[in-house]
Amino acid sequence: MAAATLKVCIVGSWNWGSAIAKIIGTNVKNQQKFTSTVKMWVSEEAVNGRKLTDIINHYHENVKYLPGHKLPENVVAVPNLSEAVQGADLLVFTTPHKFIHKICNEITGRVPKKALGIIHTEGIDKGPGGLMLISDIIREKIGIDVSVLMGANTAREVVAGEFCEATIGSKVIQNGILFKELLQTPNFCITVVDDADAVELCGALKHIVAMGTTFCDGLHCGNNSKAAIIRLGLVEMITFTRIFCKSQVSTATFLESCGLANLITTCYRRSDCKVSKTFPRTGKTIEKLEKELLNGQALQGLETSALVYQFLKHKRLLAKFPLFITVYRICYEGTPPTEILTCLQSHPAHL
Amino acid sequence: MAAATLKVCIVGSWNWGSAIAKIIGTNVKNQQKFTSTVKMWVSEEAVNGRKLTDIINHYHENVKYLPGHKLPENVVAVPNLSEAVQGADLLVFTTPHKFIHKICNEITGRVPKKALGIIHTEGIDKGPGGLMLISDIIREKIGIDVSVLMGANTAREVVAGEFCEATIGSKVIQNGILFKELLQTPNFCITVVDDADAVELCGALKHIVAMGTTFCDGLHCGNNSKAAIIRLGLVEMITFTRIFCKSQVSTATFLESCGLANLITTCYRRSDCKVSKTFPRTGKTIEKLEKELLNGQALQGLETSALVYQFLKHKRLLAKFPLFITVYRICYEGTPPTEILTCLQSHPAHL
Repeated sequence: MAAATLKVCIVGSWNWGSAIAKIIGTNVKNQQKFTSTVKMWVSEEAVNGRKLTDIINHYHENVKYLPGHKLPENVVAVPNLSEAVQGADLLVFTTPHKFIHKICNEITGRVPKKALGIIHTEGIDKGPGGLMLISDIIREKIGIDVSVLMGANTAREVVAGEFCEATIGSKVIQNGILFKELLQTPNFCITVVDDADAVELCGALKHIVAMGTTFCDGLHCGNNSKAAIIRLGLVEMITFTRIFCKSQVSTATFLESCGLANLITTCYRRSDCKVSKTFPRTGKTIEKLEKELLNGQALQGLETSALVYQFLKHKRLLAKFPLFITVYRICYEGTPPTEILTCLQSHPAHL
Repeated sequence: MAAATLKVCIVGSWNWGSAIAKIIGTNVKNQQKFTSTVKMWVSEEAVNGRKLTDIINHYHENVKYLPGHKLPENVVAVPNLSEAVQGADLLVFTTPHKFIHKICNEITGRVPKKALGIIHTEGIDKGPGGLMLISDIIREKIGIDVSVLMGANTAREVVAGEFCEATIGSKVIQNGILFKELLQTPNFCITVVDDADAVELCGALKHIVAMGTTFCDGLHCGNNSKAAIIRLGLVEMITFTRIFCKSQVSTATFLESCGLANLITTCYRRSDCKVSKTFPRTGKTIEKLEKELLNGQALQGLETSALVYQFLKHKRLLAKFPLFITVYRICYEGTPPTEILTCLQSHPAHL
């Protein structure tokens, strides 16, 4: 009797979820170890009077979140989350982190303990020690092993087949390798490392650094000043990760796509971060600008910055993180944006 | 009797040399260990019918290479190189690397063996083993200890007082610390490390990576593709440095300003690298474009790429460096620029 094939469920179908569905749908057809039908949970909504799931299953296109790109026909949109995850062996979480608690509560008990999860979620959450990783929320609530997928790979470029890289962080390395088989293509190249928590923190902490660089852009500072923020930001990311993880964390992990590459694409992309870029030139608070400019979206970095600040304050470690702390103070305490550079003059990295 | 003060000579007065002269001239006045007059060797030329050295010594401005910025009055322009270096304790070399042999030949025997040198020169040279560091040329010809100053700090921003960083690499760490005292200001922050050769190689090898990213810009590739080139380029820089140095080289050195920050400013600056950016859209050879577009300047990266290629070929290590090798082949062997991305698909970093 042939071994049972592995059933894959994609949890979430916004743009990145739909982009990865295109890859997964194609890859499972070419590898015998995976079941050829892939379920994709789609939060139901009406588009031009028709259900989005019906549109996806009929036209094989997510016309709302990834228009213009055909999905493989073996990707099946399922509006009911519990039904989508039922019996899944591999769960690919692609939802923004604010939905994670709700999703976990809904599927607890429906997912086999031997299932494996992977998340592509940039953020951190409040927790008993001040901070909690999104992967730990899933581990705790559902009881499965969770890997992390992170890197310089925006949906638009992934789906266009442009060369991108990603890092998978897995505490159990063979689980990471299995997800690499599911996700890799010639133009979506993946490296697997075992520093899963470091990989995840890269995706959250980079948003604080990116706020720093966009303040710098808004102030029309020079390229070298911006590069200094990115570099010292990466140094603070590494220092923070070592403190948070209480374990050996390899510097090399930060040279993977999840670290360096992900950080620089975020700091150099043009359309994004308009709130923090506009902020130095207005008298408005950053939270007011967030409401005015982002159409209800959250400014990534704002919440992360506050959580990280509270964590460091509690541990009396503020002095080690002048960049993180100054971003927080600019956002919440009225510190002038020009402080983003002067705070670096006495950075511990220069001692 | 008070200890003798240290005499400083700046060798070269092009834009970066003049920018650092502004810093050094100010710093020596505030620190007793340095002689308050600083000599700056200026390659004599006529500007509007008047000698450039006369203009500098009268108006305290290098009107040709750093117009609009006053130099401190204790910086004295000297047209005769041998006279400028006579009796110097600290030599700050700021010349392009093509002049190094000539300069060394001229001053050999005139500089005390106990003098200390520091270079701010991006490049490598031919040598008996295929490659030779610029610092090694000076060590060999003049017989003094040489440190390396490198980082994300262009002359225009340094002289404008914008926040910049630099790395000093010194095999004798206290020599590096002495140069830090001479050069650091609140807005020009320096870290000293002992991987001097790695610091120097960063400044040369980054130009190969930057050619890769500007091909990518010329082809209108995505941000994530560009970030992948930068990341994998940095990985190849580290691998190459370890092979070249035959010794322990710390990954952390590449996170200093000389590595990461210097690389990203070079890859993201706009005005530069117009040759390699234009190249993918024309049928002309890159050497022809260099002549047409750079007014006699050399395209940094072109010669470095050839030297590195020959070195790796001789050592049978081409397969470890797909990015470096592809840049070479695009420049010299007619390989299409689109190969810059496809060569990364099977990069050893992904294995």
